Order: sequence, then C-alpha cells, then structure tokens
Amino acid sequence: MIEEKGGKRKPVILVTNDDGYKAAGIKALVEMVKPFGRVVVVAPEEAQSGMSHAITIKNPLRLSEKSSEDDVSFYTVNGTPVDCVKLAMSQLFSKRLPDLVVSGINHGSNSSISIIYSGTMAAAVEGCLYGVPSIGFSLLDYSEFPDFSGAIEYGRVIVEKVLTEGLSAGCCLNVNVPVLPLNSIKGIRFARQNRGTWREEFEKRTDPRGEDYYWLTGYFHNDEPNATDTDEYWLKEGYVSIVPIQIDLTNYKELQRLKSWSLEDINLSHAEKNK
Amino acid sequence: MIEEKGGKRKPVILVTNDDGYKAAGIKALVEMVKPFGRVVVVAPEEAQSGMSHAITIKNPLRLSEKSSEDDVSFYTVNGTPVDCVKLAMSQLFSKRLPDLVVSGINHGSNSSISIIYSGTMAAAVEGCLYGVPSIGFSLLDYSEFPDFSGAIEYGRVIVEKVLTEGLSAGCCLNVNVPVLPLNSIKGIRFARQNRGTWREEFEKRTDPRGEDYYWLTGYFHNDEPNATDTDEYWLKEGYVSIVPIQIDLTNYKELQRLKSWSLEDINLSHAEKNK
Repeated sequence: MIEEKGGKRKPVILVTNDDGYKAAGIKALVEMVKPFGRVVVVAPEEAQSGMSHAITIKNPLRLSEKSSEDDVSFYTVNGTPVDCVKLAMSQLFSKRLPDLVVSGINHGSNSSISIIYSGTMAAAVEGCLYGVPSIGFSLLDYSEFPDFSGAIEYGRVIVEKVLTEGLSAGCCLNVNVPVLPLNSIKGIRFARQNRGTWREEFEKRTDPRGEDYYWLTGYFHNDEPNATDTDEYWLKEGYVSIVPIQIDLTNYKELQRLKSWSLEDINLSHAEKNK
Repeated sequence: MIEEKGGKRKPVILVTNDDGYKAAGIKALVEMVKPFGRVVVVAPEEAQSGMSHAITIKNPLRLSEKSSEDDVSFYTVNGTPVDCVKLAMSQLFSKRLPDLVVSGINHGSNSSISIIYSGTMAAAVEGCLYGVPSIGFSLLDYSEFPDFSGAIEYGRVIVEKVLTEGLSAGCCLNVNVPVLPLNSIKGIRFARQNRGTWREEFEKRTDPRGEDYYWLTGYFHNDEPNATDTDEYWLKEGYVSIVPIQIDLTNYKELQRLKSWSLEDINLSHAEKNK
C-alpha cells in the first residue's frame, strides 16, 4: 500500500512499460519523472511488445517487490502492461490513486497505426480508464541502449504541464520522440494520428521437417505522405509529436450515416409472426 | 490461395474469432454467413479471450488447413485473432482480398469498454485496416453452448446490408446481441459506446507455499446508467446494438484545447545554447 508520509503530499507517479523491467527505456523514464515526486514502478517481468491491451485471464498473476529506495519503489508482474496497471491500481493504490501514469520509454515508434498494437500505449489507456492523467512515451530507436536524453528533457516539460493542468476525462497522450540529439530536436508539436498500415507482413520459412512457418515482419506504409498535421510528419521534421488519444471508439459521423440504412425498422419477431 | 472459380464471383467471407476454432460461436457464425458466399475460416487453435490487438512477434506462426468442403474452408493458426487475420490476408488472400471479415460469435458481451480488451473486435479492426468491411459479433451469454438463433438471424440482416452498402474507410461494426429468444428481440439500434469501467478486478489468494497470487475478476460499472443512446441501453431494452468503431484514435476536441498549452513554443536546444 502506498501511504501518505504527512505534510504536503508529493505527486505519486506510477511507471510501467512493455519492454519489461530490465529495459533501458524504463530506467530513462524513472530518471525523467523522479524530480516530480514519488515513483512506483510496476513493470512486466518479461518483454511484452505487441501485446496491445491484452489481459491475463487464465493464469494467476504475481506482484513481486524488487526494491525500494529513496523515492523509488520497484515491482514486477508476470503479465502484460495492462495487468501491471490493473494490479498496481487495485493492490498498491486502492486508497488513493496515483497522480500520473507514465509508460515507456518504448524502444521504437508508436506513431500512426502502431498505437493499436502497442503495450506501452495500452498501459497509458488503462491508466486513463482509472481517471488518472496518463502518458505513453516512445523513442524512434529500436536499439537496446539508445540515447534517451532528448526524450527525458522534453518528457519533463510535458510531465510538468500535465501534472499542473491535468487532462480531460477519457483522454491520454501518445508522445513520440525522434532519434536526434537533444540539441537537434526542434520542439514539440500536437498532431493527429497519421493514417497508415503495415505491409508484406510475413516471412515464410520451412522447418527441418518440411513444414512451413511464418515470422511476423513487414514495413510501415504511410497512407498520407503529404499530410502536414500528423505525428509522422512532425517526427520527420525533427519534432516531438503528441497525439491526444481517446477511449471512446465510436465513429459518430458514421453513426449518423448508418441510421439512414433503416435497419432500425426491421423486427424479425414480427416477420416470424406474419409467416 | 483463394482462387476464382469462373463466372460471376461469389462474395468471399473471412471468418475468425477469439474463442478458438472449436467454439460453438464460430460454428454459428459460419452458419450465419454461409448463404452469402464462399467461407474461409481462419481461427486460433486455442481460446484467446482478452488478447485485444496482440500480435505474435517472438514465436513462429503456423497456418494449418483442417478441412475443405462445399463452400467452407477451415484453417487454424497458433496465435491471436489479429495474427489469424494478418496470416489469412497475406497467405490466402494475397491476390484478392475477401469481401467481408466477420469475427465471433463471441461467447459474452463486447459492449461498452469491453471492446478494448476484446480479441473478437480486434480481428474486425484488423480486417478494416486491410480496407475490407468488417463486423464483430458478440452474444451476451458466457455459457459454452448458448442459443445463437437470434444472433444468426439478425446477423444475416446486418451482413446482407454491409455486403450491399459497404462501410466507410477506417470504420467497422461492433454488434452485440441480447440473451433473448429470436422472437423476443425487439429489433436493431445503432448506438454509441457506453462509458464504463471494470471494478474490483482481482481476487487475492495464497498458494501452498504462502505466496500471494491474483486472479483477474471484477464487475462492469456503467458510468452513465441514464443514457438512452448507448449500446448498454439498447441491449437492456432487448435490441441488437451496433456501434460503428473507428481506427483513428485522435481526440480532435482535446487536440484543439491542448494547443493552448503553448508547449509548441518550447525549444530546449535554444535553452541549452542560451545557458
């Protein structure tokens, strides 16, 4: 249980990720948010990339305390990023929710459509479902030990603002950082999610027994390369992109259009009776 | 490879689910769509509930043909629902995409916030990413062998309409069916996603070695019980609910508001230089 320590309460920040607790990215994220308050890390034991909003239903979960020093407590969970947030909220923050959830720093981009496969962003969305301001951070560098300094410095500016201003209900932030030294990053831009898809997604191989198998692979295809207001655009221009993400998936424009289909006039129980 | 058989092309329908290929729900879904064309089932080997939009990155995938008779071919994949759609599109439909993707019939509700945890709906969203009209079907009955007759009959009305009219780009349908005999279902209503969350999500136990573990559990809390235009509302009223779902997660309203934060004026490389 995270308890008050008397006096004015420092902000409490829940940190998680999808690359697992050993990843360099989560250490960078702790460094980013440490100046703002007390940090509680609850991260997956194993890397969980591509797990999206998956939850663990069929296996029991364990929450293990790894270390606790200064203002940083460290726990692991044998599950997904969303499991981490759920277990943290119900077991560590049941009396009082944290002031902020941050997830990452992901080793690799979560811009455009990648967000829907992303465990990093799913954890941020889950934090948001608890009504806590939540931010996912990703650096466009897939290497094991990238330079996180730009992400840390710009991340602090964003975290400070969110701790002061809050975020609207049902909204969290998807922050992506270009692979540039801090001094070469041009600034921050709010953006919309670029339209795009993954293409040629599998590499087919044959095993020693002659059976086919497939490795997931492929490349990102930008469906709107000329757009100038998307995360993809601003990242290429050398800016940190921030996309506000919503939990309500309803397509309201389509909702109006579909009502003209007059499916709402159909009643099959009548049809049965009139036979 | 799915090939043309000469003459006017029958619609080709890709069927998948998250309960696995042995589930009663996918058999009901095949029965629903069989009258409309040729059916290709590509379903997970094992149940994949709660897998959301997870993809398999670290393990090789296998696509196994189980049976092929009349107008129904049956394949399984050792992966998630999204893996099934991706493998089907790249290996079976590389020359020509199917005319429709249907997913389900899920054993249990995917209304309100459940959609973000749902493998059933993730498969529909993935179909939509390939530009194919896609529908996820769920019956609000968690038992192993529920009565799917209402879902089948109303589902056919919806499938016929979607095959004729298509769906807008970047939009798929989330269809939920109440647990009622066909004759008691009152009709179909288009709706928005109800706001709600899951509460008290874990049951804590102690294993024989004295270590704690947790089972995911909990109940759905409706955050807007008085709304009269949501999926939850219409389902309780005895209607089939249809929510149009969008792939673009940008919160455009919040995007405008956040621009007033003036984070876009900050440039830390300047700050460094001016030190």
